[in-house]
Amino acid sequence: MIKLLLLSDREILENFFMPRTVAVVGASNNPSKVGYSLLHNLLRSGYDGKIFPVNLKDEEVQGIKAYRTLKEIPEHVDLLVVSIPSPYVLDLMDEAHERGIKSVLIISAGFKEIGPEGAMLEQKLLAKIREYGMRVIGPNCLGLIDNFTPLNITFTKSNSKQGNLGFVSQSGALITGILDWSVKEDIGFSKFVSVGNKLDIDEVELIELMGEDQHTKVILLYLEAVNKGREFIEVCRRVVKKKPIIAIKSGTSKAGARAASSHTGAMAGANTAYTTAFEKAGVIRVDRIEDLFTIATTFSWQPLPRSNQLCIITNAGGPGIIATDHAEFNGLSLAPLSSTTINTLKQNLHPAAATHNPIDVLGTGGAKEYRISMELAMKDPNVGMILVILAPQEMTKPVEIAEVIIDISKRFPEKPVSVSFFGGKEMEKGLELLKRNYIPAFTFPEKGVLALAGLWRYQAILSRPEFYELPREFPSVRKEIVQNIFDSVVEQGRVTLLGSESIAVAQAYGIRVPQTETAFTTNEAVEIANRIGYPLVMKITSPQILHKTDINGVRIGIQDEKELTDAFAEMLRAARTHFPHAKVIGVDIQQLAKKGTELIIGVSKDPQFGHLAIIGTGGIYTNVFEDVQFGLVPITHTEATQMLEGTKVYSILQGARGGKKADIGSVIETLERVSRLVQDFPQMVDLDINPLFADETGVMAVDVKITISKEEHQKQKQEEST
Amino acid sequence: MIKLLLLSDREILENFFMPRTVAVVGASNNPSKVGYSLLHNLLRSGYDGKIFPVNLKDEEVQGIKAYRTLKEIPEHVDLLVVSIPSPYVLDLMDEAHERGIKSVLIISAGFKEIGPEGAMLEQKLLAKIREYGMRVIGPNCLGLIDNFTPLNITFTKSNSKQGNLGFVSQSGALITGILDWSVKEDIGFSKFVSVGNKLDIDEVELIELMGEDQHTKVILLYLEAVNKGREFIEVCRRVVKKKPIIAIKSGTSKAGARAASSHTGAMAGANTAYTTAFEKAGVIRVDRIEDLFTIATTFSWQPLPRSNQLCIITNAGGPGIIATDHAEFNGLSLAPLSSTTINTLKQNLHPAAATHNPIDVLGTGGAKEYRISMELAMKDPNVGMILVILAPQEMTKPVEIAEVIIDISKRFPEKPVSVSFFGGKEMEKGLELLKRNYIPAFTFPEKGVLALAGLWRYQAILSRPEFYELPREFPSVRKEIVQNIFDSVVEQGRVTLLGSESIAVAQAYGIRVPQTETAFTTNEAVEIANRIGYPLVMKITSPQILHKTDINGVRIGIQDEKELTDAFAEMLRAARTHFPHAKVIGVDIQQLAKKGTELIIGVSKDPQFGHLAIIGTGGIYTNVFEDVQFGLVPITHTEATQMLEGTKVYSILQGARGGKKADIGSVIETLERVSRLVQDFPQMVDLDINPLFADETGVMAVDVKITISKEEHQKQKQEEST
Repeated sequence: MIKLLLLSDREILENFFMPRTVAVVGASNNPSKVGYSLLHNLLRSGYDGKIFPVNLKDEEVQGIKAYRTLKEIPEHVDLLVVSIPSPYVLDLMDEAHERGIKSVLIISAGFKEIGPEGAMLEQKLLAKIREYGMRVIGPNCLGLIDNFTPLNITFTKSNSKQGNLGFVSQSGALITGILDWSVKEDIGFSKFVSVGNKLDIDEVELIELMGEDQHTKVILLYLEAVNKGREFIEVCRRVVKKKPIIAIKSGTSKAGARAASSHTGAMAGANTAYTTAFEKAGVIRVDRIEDLFTIATTFSWQPLPRSNQLCIITNAGGPGIIATDHAEFNGLSLAPLSSTTINTLKQNLHPAAATHNPIDVLGTGGAKEYRISMELAMKDPNVGMILVILAPQEMTKPVEIAEVIIDISKRFPEKPVSVSFFGGKEMEKGLELLKRNYIPAFTFPEKGVLALAGLWRYQAILSRPEFYELPREFPSVRKEIVQNIFDSVVEQGRVTLLGSESIAVAQAYGIRVPQTETAFTTNEAVEIANRIGYPLVMKITSPQILHKTDINGVRIGIQDEKELTDAFAEMLRAARTHFPHAKVIGVDIQQLAKKGTELIIGVSKDPQFGHLAIIGTGGIYTNVFEDVQFGLVPITHTEATQMLEGTKVYSILQGARGGKKADIGSVIETLERVSRLVQDFPQMVDLDINPLFADETGVMAVDVKITISKEEHQKQKQEEST
Repeated sequence: MIKLLLLSDREILENFFMPRTVAVVGASNNPSKVGYSLLHNLLRSGYDGKIFPVNLKDEEVQGIKAYRTLKEIPEHVDLLVVSIPSPYVLDLMDEAHERGIKSVLIISAGFKEIGPEGAMLEQKLLAKIREYGMRVIGPNCLGLIDNFTPLNITFTKSNSKQGNLGFVSQSGALITGILDWSVKEDIGFSKFVSVGNKLDIDEVELIELMGEDQHTKVILLYLEAVNKGREFIEVCRRVVKKKPIIAIKSGTSKAGARAASSHTGAMAGANTAYTTAFEKAGVIRVDRIEDLFTIATTFSWQPLPRSNQLCIITNAGGPGIIATDHAEFNGLSLAPLSSTTINTLKQNLHPAAATHNPIDVLGTGGAKEYRISMELAMKDPNVGMILVILAPQEMTKPVEIAEVIIDISKRFPEKPVSVSFFGGKEMEKGLELLKRNYIPAFTFPEKGVLALAGLWRYQAILSRPEFYELPREFPSVRKEIVQNIFDSVVEQGRVTLLGSESIAVAQAYGIRVPQTETAFTTNEAVEIANRIGYPLVMKITSPQILHKTDINGVRIGIQDEKELTDAFAEMLRAARTHFPHAKVIGVDIQQLAKKGTELIIGVSKDPQFGHLAIIGTGGIYTNVFEDVQFGLVPITHTEATQMLEGTKVYSILQGARGGKKADIGSVIETLERVSRLVQDFPQMVDLDINPLFADETGVMAVDVKITISKEEHQKQKQEEST
């Protein structure tokens, strides 16, 4: 049953791009109307299905028979395009439902983007389409293009060339700009979708669709926000195994960082969440629109490299050095050339030519020298990719050298090549020729490097072990203990766990914690202390007391019973003075842990992407140095290892500064156990283990803070009981 | 006497760009020769002085009477251009000297760039020109251009348009590429110089010259290395007060980082030195060649902003958001618009238009809406600069809107404007019109932001107080104490100071240090201990023992005489066992300092730029977090303050994490005193104060390490005695 619905869902989705029949409501004979452009573009796009303009007044629109209402259309409508004022859209949905229409592209603006009134209308629209089982792209969008159907239902002036880039944009204007620019730059697209307000269909479904689309080789995204973060990551991870996804995420300014009480939360701003999520999803993120296309066209034209070892061939030193710098900035290395390559170069190039990498054929170097160098680089097993730079020199013949590059590139199709013909008029014809032959070619060497670096970034994503790895299971964890503690916390109307409760939760998931018990009377305290053994730590505990140190509520290194009972009395007195209304006040009696390197492991829940985990420098320096690495739960073993290795404090754990090497395995495992804990209990909002002591004997979670969401807790309980 | 020589020096320099007579040795009739291109370019450049080709065989070169030797030329030669094989250049210099020629442009290659043989030739050439008092540009260079003389003595194919950018390049090929590209982009230059091997004249003198050149408004540099670092900084600081200097420094890869033994040295790689030097010099550094020109043309066309408060006017949301992100990346803020602006916008724009910043005139917004918005932004005192974005929409008329921008920009010439016409063919005419009217106009909004950000970076440099500030004087420093210690160290054949010596040096410059004395016998140790008072620190000391902790040679917290004498005996025993050949072994007895926040203050000598100072997190975390800020000596009070404020540990000094606020003034003063110390004693190679304890009562330099250069020390002594 579900299977069938899913299939049908896919058909509904495909009808947006390959409909046999399209109705355009609001199609117009008035060239200043959006409804005019929509039909006009559809007609000239070469679409060979049936088109039914719907117009209340005119009998014919742009030469085609028009209908007054949907009802009058004699055939089934695969795709309904809507371009009428927003107040009329709801009623139109009723009519569409009567006609059994499922796929609706709503161009009309006047919804949530105009304020509360429009938002209300949009909510009603959502309810209606859900009721009718319709799927909607838009509202407030520019439309969509499929250059293979072919079909163009947008109100832009520009045409779009057929190609293999699929583009999903949350900004309509960006599309108009890019389309106009792409015509000039000769860049082609497979599909182009403006998602507008994303009432229903959003990037997640479109990425999946383009992932399966045979005409789409690269997927490009312009996003301002991702609503369904987890699904976005899942879909992208699936799709990037087949084709690269490159994205611009705008709106990254700090203004958006949210206030947070936990250490982890304070460091995990919205931009961090997106960065971490894109990383996990395997999406290549770029900052500049131009870079998006530099990288995308290179993907569509060149093979993936086997390594990041770049060989630069140039006729000029300066541009070669600049390219070398940018290679390093962008994660590439200069390949050490094999002795065969170097010797053959020496035999064939001018004696003053540089035969190491960059290979400098000198200003006198022409087609012959470029041919030899490029062929050797292609054959050299140390070389993963080639950048050819040509600056105008006395003897330079750009077209001839372009022909050499094209020829060698065709003969050795397995290594990617990019080109910088650094100049102006002199170089134009060469550049054109290269691009016509699918060689990414640019004026400036920096772009040539960027193009190849993009290929390598994707190759590196595909090679990630964690991409194919499941998080580790820890069979001995005691879920029921955690469940009971959370139940009791929620029952007591709390969301923040007491210290002893948090310690117990961590312990239930196999995280080493100091022995901790809560005493409510002096006698209990003495009893517990004798059980644990001196020296001890004492911490005041009460749901009402959040900042213990403010009332001197933490004592470290209690040596004997006398100190214990004195401290107990003092702490209770202070607590009662400062918190006269606190109902329960006790003192946690805790084993004094041996001090190790101070780390933090924490989790904070991001509204879009779920639990974001951190690991790094703990203690008082946590927020000073913000030496932490982020990851999204679930964290696999490889991810946990890489996160830890990415911190600066890792060098201390490894025994830098003369210390002993810490038990790094236990640190990594602790992060994995924390990840498992929040996976099992998504009602957890924040968790901070700070400090986590690490030394050669293992780790100890000395202080654990946990906050849960009451609503989420109850939701989880319900889900489990059903 | 000196004055006169300088004046004449200037004339010699000016003769490169405004000679009345030019001799071209190696001028040729063979179009495949460099000597052909040189003369050909000179002839077609419109140069109206006299030209004397020198050619052994031909009586006429390119239609002009040629001479066999310099001797035969009937007039004085202001500028000699050399394009003959390198082996003949030396003899030519003799001939030139006989003719009283002082300015020589050597195009010929075949010098140090080809290896040891060429380097030797170059050294001989240097000796010769010094002997003859000649000044040389080159060898191994492309030549030079002055578009106002006018004069083009290069062997490029491209012409160069007259404009107000002055360019100095260490790469000839970069010039050919840029010239070719600039013609296409319609970018004009005042002077263009290829400095080649920089045998004599280098960027320093050319920057000075261009600084005074009325036709040059912006100076652009492409540098691979700066040889005279200090002079470079001094000259740039003078020149940037008049006009901006923008630079690409290539060759920044990590391979160049040098090995270093001190903490400071380890962190101060070559790239850091350049970054710090450019910062101190007020030079704007960019990474991409294209950015160099984006910023440079903006300088030559637009006024400087009064603030970094950007107003964005757009007809499309997406590009506006992207511009907002890039504004933040580049140090700009979005101006909060005045209520007058907002209210007037509300009255005049579409009700759905965004009247905050970015101002969104909507897709329907045309010339009228842009005019109103731009005029209001110009009048709004909160706005410092304006970016206008136009995406192609149904109603968009790019040329009309370009005209509005030009008009408003002319009427309000005091606020800088840049433009993004985001599209392709649609936008071309608008873009051209804007550029013709000196409005920086680009396809992508990111570039529009970058252009304005460049203006602001320069404005910020001009507004720096430290740019006009002298380092503080500390009249009570005891130079003679330091002098005596250094003398005695060098006398003993050492370069590294003992702990007690370093402490004494610091103390002589008013830096607070713990009381420290060296004991060589148990009795002395007891005596000193009684003077200083317990608890104490003991440190083994000997010129041979560099890593004290390896032999347990540091004891902290010695409580009484018993502990003292025991430790003394043990330390001496261990030292004698491990270093049987150490001549002198003593123990430093030191007052135990109260622990504060651990800082590092250090200095390391860079080969190009002199003493590089750092301040930041000290102690065991120094090299882990590398939380340090760099500055070049001399460090002024403002610089020292900014350096400290730039560190992360500064927040701890300010009393973050509940601590007391440290005596920040004393920390800053310590850095200034260290700066003064190395200024007075440039023979110092490395100085590390680590840790420097800082608390509310002040600072304490607990451990000081100093290394000096014997050669420099003796040089200084000589200089002082003369």
